[in-house]
Amino acid sequence: MKISPSEFNYTQFPGKTLASKLIESALAYKTNPLADQNKGKGKRLGCIFLNPSLRTRVSTQIAASNLGIESVVLNMDKEAWALEMEEGATMNKNTVEHIKDAAGVLGSYFDFLAVRAFPTLTDKSADMADEVINKFIKYTGRPIISLESALRHPLQSLADQVTIKEKAKTTKPKVVLTWAPHIKAIPHAVANSFAEWTLGMDYDLTITHPEGYELDEQFTQGAKIEYDQSRALQNADFVYVKNWSSFKDYGKIHHTDPTWMLTENSLKNAPDAHVMHCLPVRRNVELSDEILDGSRALIQQQAANRVFAAQAVLSHLLDI
Amino acid sequence: MKISPSEFNYTQFPGKTLASKLIESALAYKTNPLADQNKGKGKRLGCIFLNPSLRTRVSTQIAASNLGIESVVLNMDKEAWALEMEEGATMNKNTVEHIKDAAGVLGSYFDFLAVRAFPTLTDKSADMADEVINKFIKYTGRPIISLESALRHPLQSLADQVTIKEKAKTTKPKVVLTWAPHIKAIPHAVANSFAEWTLGMDYDLTITHPEGYELDEQFTQGAKIEYDQSRALQNADFVYVKNWSSFKDYGKIHHTDPTWMLTENSLKNAPDAHVMHCLPVRRNVELSDEILDGSRALIQQQAANRVFAAQAVLSHLLDI
Amino acid sequence: MKISPSEFNYTQFPGKTLASKLIESALAYKTNPLADQNKGKGKRLGCIFLNPSLRTRVSTQIAASNLGIESVVLNMDKEAWALEMEEGATMNKNTVEHIKDAAGVLGSYFDFLAVRAFPTLTDKSADMADEVINKFIKYTGRPIISLESALRHPLQSLADQVTIKEKAKTTKPKVVLTWAPHIKAIPHAVANSFAEWTLGMDYDLTITHPEGYELDEQFTQGAKIEYDQSRALQNADFVYVKNWSSFKDYGKIHHTDPTWMLTENSLKNAPDAHVMHCLPVRRNVELSDEILDGSRALIQQQAANRVFAAQAVLSHLLDI
Repeated sequence: MKISPSEFNYTQFPGKTLASKLIESALAYKTNPLADQNKGKGKRLGCIFLNPSLRTRVSTQIAASNLGIESVVLNMDKEAWALEMEEGATMNKNTVEHIKDAAGVLGSYFDFLAVRAFPTLTDKSADMADEVINKFIKYTGRPIISLESALRHPLQSLADQVTIKEKAKTTKPKVVLTWAPHIKAIPHAVANSFAEWTLGMDYDLTITHPEGYELDEQFTQGAKIEYDQSRALQNADFVYVKNWSSFKDYGKIHHTDPTWMLTENSLKNAPDAHVMHCLPVRRNVELSDEILDGSRALIQQQAANRVFAAQAVLSHLLDI
Repeated sequence: MKISPSEFNYTQFPGKTLASKLIESALAYKTNPLADQNKGKGKRLGCIFLNPSLRTRVSTQIAASNLGIESVVLNMDKEAWALEMEEGATMNKNTVEHIKDAAGVLGSYFDFLAVRAFPTLTDKSADMADEVINKFIKYTGRPIISLESALRHPLQSLADQVTIKEKAKTTKPKVVLTWAPHIKAIPHAVANSFAEWTLGMDYDLTITHPEGYELDEQFTQGAKIEYDQSRALQNADFVYVKNWSSFKDYGKIHHTDPTWMLTENSLKNAPDAHVMHCLPVRRNVELSDEILDGSRALIQQQAANRVFAAQAVLSHLLDI
Repeated sequence: MKISPSEFNYTQFPGKTLASKLIESALAYKTNPLADQNKGKGKRLGCIFLNPSLRTRVSTQIAASNLGIESVVLNMDKEAWALEMEEGATMNKNTVEHIKDAAGVLGSYFDFLAVRAFPTLTDKSADMADEVINKFIKYTGRPIISLESALRHPLQSLADQVTIKEKAKTTKPKVVLTWAPHIKAIPHAVANSFAEWTLGMDYDLTITHPEGYELDEQFTQGAKIEYDQSRALQNADFVYVKNWSSFKDYGKIHHTDPTWMLTENSLKNAPDAHVMHCLPVRRNVELSDEILDGSRALIQQQAANRVFAAQAVLSHLLDI
């Protein structure tokens, strides 16, 4: 890369201008995936997973390959060593390698890195600082692409916006982000990131959830917050369904009220609503089968668009 | 692919005509592995493992590479999410993603998929329906190659038939499939599949095992069943050694009678018998060292032929 | 390969002449990594891991790619089957496949293999015989590159010597290998191998450790053994820091005396000393942060040189 790596890291909403450009680029690659098949020749992307992944893992590898970039996958959590995050730690416990050492080495092996690092959901301040991805940025000296960090999932969000772009009938569609029940404590990253991008694209965003499930305000400022799901959903164009654990009472599950599961009945006042979800989805817990298997669902389309979203971002990085 | 994916899935015996063609094709690739090195250029194969694998994993990757196909491995059981199989399930337990969602997504990323999905050995009806591989077929919309399913292991069987073809001195060799002891409950797939292919090729097949270890009759019709191993082995040309758990008393181990272990003594009336096994083998439990390390064994040759068997099947898929 | 595989296996110090040639070759590849990018076209390297790995895993894949060699990674410990090592074993326990069968098969799939197999640290005679890597050599029939065996880590040692060569101001620098504390029982391979190479290159080697931590003498003959760390470190040019468990009282931790941790204070009489470590390192247990993050440290440079060390060895294998 010709840039100082701190100049561009794809870890959050990149501003409306670049976001719009990336959306157009993704749509162009969807039409012709191999248009730039030699653009990344000789470049190497390290895909570093500290957590499981299906769509993100495979779509990133395919996106790289479409551009001629060689990708190497490292399941850091299983194939390598447990990482220490704390600066100045005396490492006489379970962690085997400090992130500053591991990240530095990986930076010497790859042109850029893509990193998945879920939040702890127990250490709020570490998660709020997006500690792991930021230490990779600090210590690799290479551009970093987030494959989902504690705070955000920007490749998912780009694919989501590409999907909205493909289906939107107006320039300012009504978008609703609705909380859904789940049996486990789930990160906030997808919800944060979807809100950040949808607001950044100047769409009309309503967020609905039970009281106590308010998201971090830094991501939701400008959205309507509505505790009554049925009122929120009225005349929605796009409904994004997602569970998250409590942010205030950090990482806790307050309740899993099944009436919040999205069904056809929930959408009786939103006849044209498209339904979105990032997957994996708990069927008949978050969403009903009738929605997932019906014509409203854009969920497979979102997943398919992950390839072209990743490809647009990698292509942009090659241009810098 | 230009076909409707339901038209060809390589999950079982494909009929004698095509099987013969695949055997010839495998033998040709064995002579010249790179004869069609650009045939699969631009195609992508997703290799999806729900269980461990050595030979199948590596030989499939190499076969794809020999044809210019790009393969991507996903260890679904370790790198991604636990799959729900039940239609209409309320997913409030351990499974994280429904197979219909995961399979649909993978179908959008790859031109074809290769899937390994062992049986449960506890849920007979699910296993009998070959549930996992059939749901992949149903939901991916892509041709599927079985890397061993609950019922069959057709790439192994093709490699076995290639090996028999290389060594057979007559057009109708005497082939014996013999049960062998083992300490764990083992699937029926290799035995089923070997019987299905050997009968399908019109060879003379005898199956021998202790009473209570009868295989599913759909795979063995036309074979002689003989409970006396030494009588079965007489004048055999090929002896395929394999353990399987009880089918009737599903997934159970009735006994592990060590006299069923194949030794040189077992073959005293089969002087020219070649011995086969799919590996991994429990030495001195299923088979004696003297057989495995002796000149009768075709076992390394079978394993080596796995590359060319997979290559023949992939090449055929590219032709459709 | 045109050689009989037993003719060259890269598992130990290859003699000063070839070692010097490999060091020069690594330095040349560091200047121009793609100088021989088609040299290994059509060759396949199987990278077999029986243990975790970060640097070795990634640097070997990249080195192979730089030479046009296709590499396939198999995490034998996680993706395949537990291996039996004992000749003649009756395999009715936990091991699923004998190494002789697995190695034979892998030898038929690849042109050469790279194998990581840590010691048991409990069975001294098996470890002393370097059982696993030697069985791979015996049964694959292919050249084997050690990715760290029970006794040695020769790719690490070559990278270490490349790093010394880059920094040495004299032809016979003073090199000190110092034991450091650690909380776990750690193998001897890196220490053995570093001593073997440093002595083999005719450098001045002092080894310092608490009494009871003597290394196997076959690797240290010709080195000064000095139980007083501060005396050993005096005027050192290069200080290699490493923990190892007891060799005499095999695999045991006698003590973890924190005064043996290397700090700036330890080096007060070695003003120009460079500090080396193979990583992963336990910060503030083996080495202090001030050293690791200061200008003496060559540790990131050693790790970066792993690519070129592996590349030099692979390139040499292609020449044979």
